[in-house]
Amino acid sequence: MKIAVLGTGNVGRALGAALAGQGHEVTIGTRDPATTLARVGVDAMESPPLSEWFTEHPGIGLARFAAAAEACELVVNATSGGASLNVLARAGAGNLAGKVLLDVANPLDFSHGMPPSLLVCNRDSLAEQIQRAYPAARVVKSLNTMTAALMVNPGLVAGGEHTAFVSGNDAEAKKTVTALLTDLGHTDVIDLGDIETARGAEMLLPIWLSLWGALGTPLLNFKIVR
Amino acid sequence: MKIAVLGTGNVGRALGAALAGQGHEVTIGTRDPATTLARVGVDAMESPPLSEWFTEHPGIGLARFAAAAEACELVVNATSGGASLNVLARAGAGNLAGKVLLDVANPLDFSHGMPPSLLVCNRDSLAEQIQRAYPAARVVKSLNTMTAALMVNPGLVAGGEHTAFVSGNDAEAKKTVTALLTDLGHTDVIDLGDIETARGAEMLLPIWLSLWGALGTPLLNFKIVR
Repeated sequence: MKIAVLGTGNVGRALGAALAGQGHEVTIGTRDPATTLARVGVDAMESPPLSEWFTEHPGIGLARFAAAAEACELVVNATSGGASLNVLARAGAGNLAGKVLLDVANPLDFSHGMPPSLLVCNRDSLAEQIQRAYPAARVVKSLNTMTAALMVNPGLVAGGEHTAFVSGNDAEAKKTVTALLTDLGHTDVIDLGDIETARGAEMLLPIWLSLWGALGTPLLNFKIVR
Repeated sequence: MKIAVLGTGNVGRALGAALAGQGHEVTIGTRDPATTLARVGVDAMESPPLSEWFTEHPGIGLARFAAAAEACELVVNATSGGASLNVLARAGAGNLAGKVLLDVANPLDFSHGMPPSLLVCNRDSLAEQIQRAYPAARVVKSLNTMTAALMVNPGLVAGGEHTAFVSGNDAEAKKTVTALLTDLGHTDVIDLGDIETARGAEMLLPIWLSLWGALGTPLLNFKIVR
């Protein structure tokens, strides 16, 4: 499948590399490829320069948000949650229409200090904001409840015995995303329901952050026992 | 230990019976015992009349909120979240001072339809509201993330292999609560941190409600794998 991964941070890189490794044709979307490639030194998340990363992943393309989205069948929103709506506007409604839009972002609000709170929650969610802004896109919320390393390699913790969630209004889109997750090694994918249920998935972030602090590692996940 | 359980619903009954079964001296607190005992028929949660329940649990006392709190060493807030601050005001600040206040309530907001949203979240929580209102109480948030049957009998699901959380500012109070949980069969109790971390525990409710819907049973819980 042709997949556009919007976002060049740790999450975009992890998903881009893993999906390419599964045989998909991956293009990373960014605001301006020349500027992105010209960056030197580590970024705020201590990731090495993207130019180095592309040298190590020669099969993966880089394009402006709109060009990446236009050429693909499935779009991954791997931007920071506060920037997601702006990035998707640059990708363009026409380039998102009819496509599965896998939203893995968290609407973290750092303006009130650490730990971050949420920019939207309770009676709305980032995923719903995206679905409302792009009604012709087939938004599926998933993977936002775990660290990037586990998204693409669930076996790193507890032999992969933990849970991923999908939320969305389009059953076929959820099936497509669930198949991608299964290919990545996820063995327990729970369909929470329509896109409104993304509220619950996004509202896991505060306890996830506390657990990272309490356990001293982000290599943790929720397993739903029943 | 002398324990007051404030609230006569399913949660209060389950915790009252289980703590009495552990050898504690339990008093259920209610607004007006005579009115409570005079109720006939099932309540909104389809619980049988409390008078029947007391006949089946002869060792458990019933008293007004203030009298129950005054006589005890540990208070359990098992009221509905929207009523908790009002009930604790009736219990009285003097009767709560210095005591461990185990808060198991969820601030559910039914005013916007089903499923409920939260009355408070993100940058505040019910547990913090209680701690601010009663600074001399030693508030510990716990057990609000699972159904009443699992609070008192974790072995009902996955052989008890799942997680309970504690949040609070008083380390000794968290130890006291953790010991109670251990006696009830909880094998994995994670200390999330200070009372602010109750935000995360309370914000689990939306996905918990979605999971109940998706899985068709409230007999589910979060196991934190790491």
